[in-house]
Amino acid sequence: METGELNHYAARYKAELLDNIIPFWTKHSPDMEHGGYFTCLSREGDVFDTDKFIWLQARQVWLFAMLYNEVSPKTEWLHLAIDGAEFLKKHGRDTSGNWYFSLTREGKPLVQPYNIFSDCFAAMAFGELYKACKSNEYRQIAVDTFHNILKRRTATKGIYEKQVPGTRPMMNFALPMILCNLSLILEDVVGNQSIEQQVTELANTILSTFYQKESGLILENVSPEGHFVDSFEGRLLNPGHSNESMWFLMDIGTRFKRPELIQQATDILLRTTEYGWDKQHGGLFYFLDIKGHPTQQLEWDQKLWWVHLETLIALAKAYKLTGNTACRDWFETVQDYSWKHFKDPDYGEWFGYLNRQGEPLLTLKGGKWKGCFHVPRAMFQLWRILEA
Amino acid sequence: METGELNHYAARYKAELLDNIIPFWTKHSPDMEHGGYFTCLSREGDVFDTDKFIWLQARQVWLFAMLYNEVSPKTEWLHLAIDGAEFLKKHGRDTSGNWYFSLTREGKPLVQPYNIFSDCFAAMAFGELYKACKSNEYRQIAVDTFHNILKRRTATKGIYEKQVPGTRPMMNFALPMILCNLSLILEDVVGNQSIEQQVTELANTILSTFYQKESGLILENVSPEGHFVDSFEGRLLNPGHSNESMWFLMDIGTRFKRPELIQQATDILLRTTEYGWDKQHGGLFYFLDIKGHPTQQLEWDQKLWWVHLETLIALAKAYKLTGNTACRDWFETVQDYSWKHFKDPDYGEWFGYLNRQGEPLLTLKGGKWKGCFHVPRAMFQLWRILEA
Repeated sequence: METGELNHYAARYKAELLDNIIPFWTKHSPDMEHGGYFTCLSREGDVFDTDKFIWLQARQVWLFAMLYNEVSPKTEWLHLAIDGAEFLKKHGRDTSGNWYFSLTREGKPLVQPYNIFSDCFAAMAFGELYKACKSNEYRQIAVDTFHNILKRRTATKGIYEKQVPGTRPMMNFALPMILCNLSLILEDVVGNQSIEQQVTELANTILSTFYQKESGLILENVSPEGHFVDSFEGRLLNPGHSNESMWFLMDIGTRFKRPELIQQATDILLRTTEYGWDKQHGGLFYFLDIKGHPTQQLEWDQKLWWVHLETLIALAKAYKLTGNTACRDWFETVQDYSWKHFKDPDYGEWFGYLNRQGEPLLTLKGGKWKGCFHVPRAMFQLWRILEA
Repeated sequence: METGELNHYAARYKAELLDNIIPFWTKHSPDMEHGGYFTCLSREGDVFDTDKFIWLQARQVWLFAMLYNEVSPKTEWLHLAIDGAEFLKKHGRDTSGNWYFSLTREGKPLVQPYNIFSDCFAAMAFGELYKACKSNEYRQIAVDTFHNILKRRTATKGIYEKQVPGTRPMMNFALPMILCNLSLILEDVVGNQSIEQQVTELANTILSTFYQKESGLILENVSPEGHFVDSFEGRLLNPGHSNESMWFLMDIGTRFKRPELIQQATDILLRTTEYGWDKQHGGLFYFLDIKGHPTQQLEWDQKLWWVHLETLIALAKAYKLTGNTACRDWFETVQDYSWKHFKDPDYGEWFGYLNRQGEPLLTLKGGKWKGCFHVPRAMFQLWRILEA
């Protein structure tokens, strides 16, 4: 950090990652009997449900492989990643190579491959693990899955799509957003050249199609031509999603030397954080309607861990890359809120779901959607950004 | 009401229905240009979204036809019902006679017929409207739709089913529950004999399969043999759903002279209301986990209008039919909460969605799921139960 003002926080994030978060997952999460991980963990770390959700299995494989690659080549971490990968390899796909959404503890398929993000996180997992152990089998799974995602990208839900085609087509922000991140992770795995072209296109799609100039905000769903659609889906804002994608764009801007991309991402990040902040109770809203109408999502006013942690990563990166002091100020505000409300003072890991007032709504440390991913990734990212 | 203690409330519900709720919908809801109804209405009654959801279109047809049949043969009410029915008849079904989930304002299909409750509410609407105007065309739509529901009942989602068959089969409570109510409404439309047999089977299914003896509660999802399944779905309780179905069972008990059914429904109602009541802030929870684990539903602690109104109907019926004073006491408690928190003191209709503390979470009067149905049906039911 050029100004040196925030790097005293680096040690705090490093310690939180290595002394609190990772030990929680290495202790409570491994399924010694059937392989893979338990992710539904109570406040104290007890397993309350044994189903295995592909998103969370794959994200945990990625996380431990990434720690092995980026922090320290600990055998324990590599073994944990391989144990999850073997479970996924054996049970995770249907006969066409599509990744299921969830499995039983033993690995029997429960929910069909209707959700392409299962595939995205699987590609991310096997790509990162290939870098760790150079297994060509893992590399091939990553490459095949990545190509399958690209093949399915215009009709991601396949036969499970409930929208009637043609009436009011819309594009969703999530896939291009996640592909930005996934493409960089897989750069050395699938080959550099195609990746550079692809991320350039993805960044353009986000900034020309989903970005709305008048409001300065990212829309979650737009028409294929990038127009606003006045419907529940079309009016939807997801500040956490938008902020997370801004640090993906900053990474692309850094990797391919595009300072104007970093600048634009910083502007959108600041605008979104200001817009999404709850002036009454603090914290960032989960969902908003751009016209101020009621959202479909009843959980709109809740404060979610990943929204705040992804925003912190983006603000820290933006400050480091641009020196814009508004990023530093917002970083301090979001950081204060996060440590005060999400960190559990009595048990390991962080709370995930708070009500609008900032009190725990669910005291779980892991569930169907919260696993070993956003908290440790953020701790790692913030440690490295802030110490530099 | 035998004891005469509660009948002073009857006038209050009658007035609320006729002077507040119905005028709100007749004023703000009709789409004069394209037919059908607007249901997404702000606190003041302004239209904020124009999509047409089949559940809500059909429920509103039923409601106005029912008012015409049961309260007063007002031409305005009949015309409003017919206007919605014509819109549904023209635009609501695919070529196989399945009802879409939603349409654009003009009637173009938006979401495919993945949801059998669209069909249930359509059958309810056309059946009730047939009784009002004796149109054989409407009768035929009701009968065809009803038979199609029965044909689809073991695989309600058809090709949109995402559960992998065989791994962990489960039955959901909603369809047998709604069929209890629908069957009585259609008794004179489809023929009495088959209905009596059917509702007997449905009541048995609910009380032998979904009812859990140890807890005294109704489970939302059970194995096909009626066993508890220790998963998110299997642990789920929905007190409002359970209480609503208890008054359907009481109606069946009354119609077919089965006092033991009324007794059992009353016991389950009291047990569920006690269990589902928020001892800290008042009101009934939306969802609970029977083992006390975190639910999947982030909205679990919210207080919803229909949960409270359906519970009031059930408690009033139970008190009237059994004289059990615990029903009267709970009626007073739930009634106090409902009028205090759900009724809007400044504008028409009632709020639908409160946070745990009882404050409006969304100030809408109608949306994607709240239409002209639970509030007026409850006002009508309570008026009639309490004045008797």
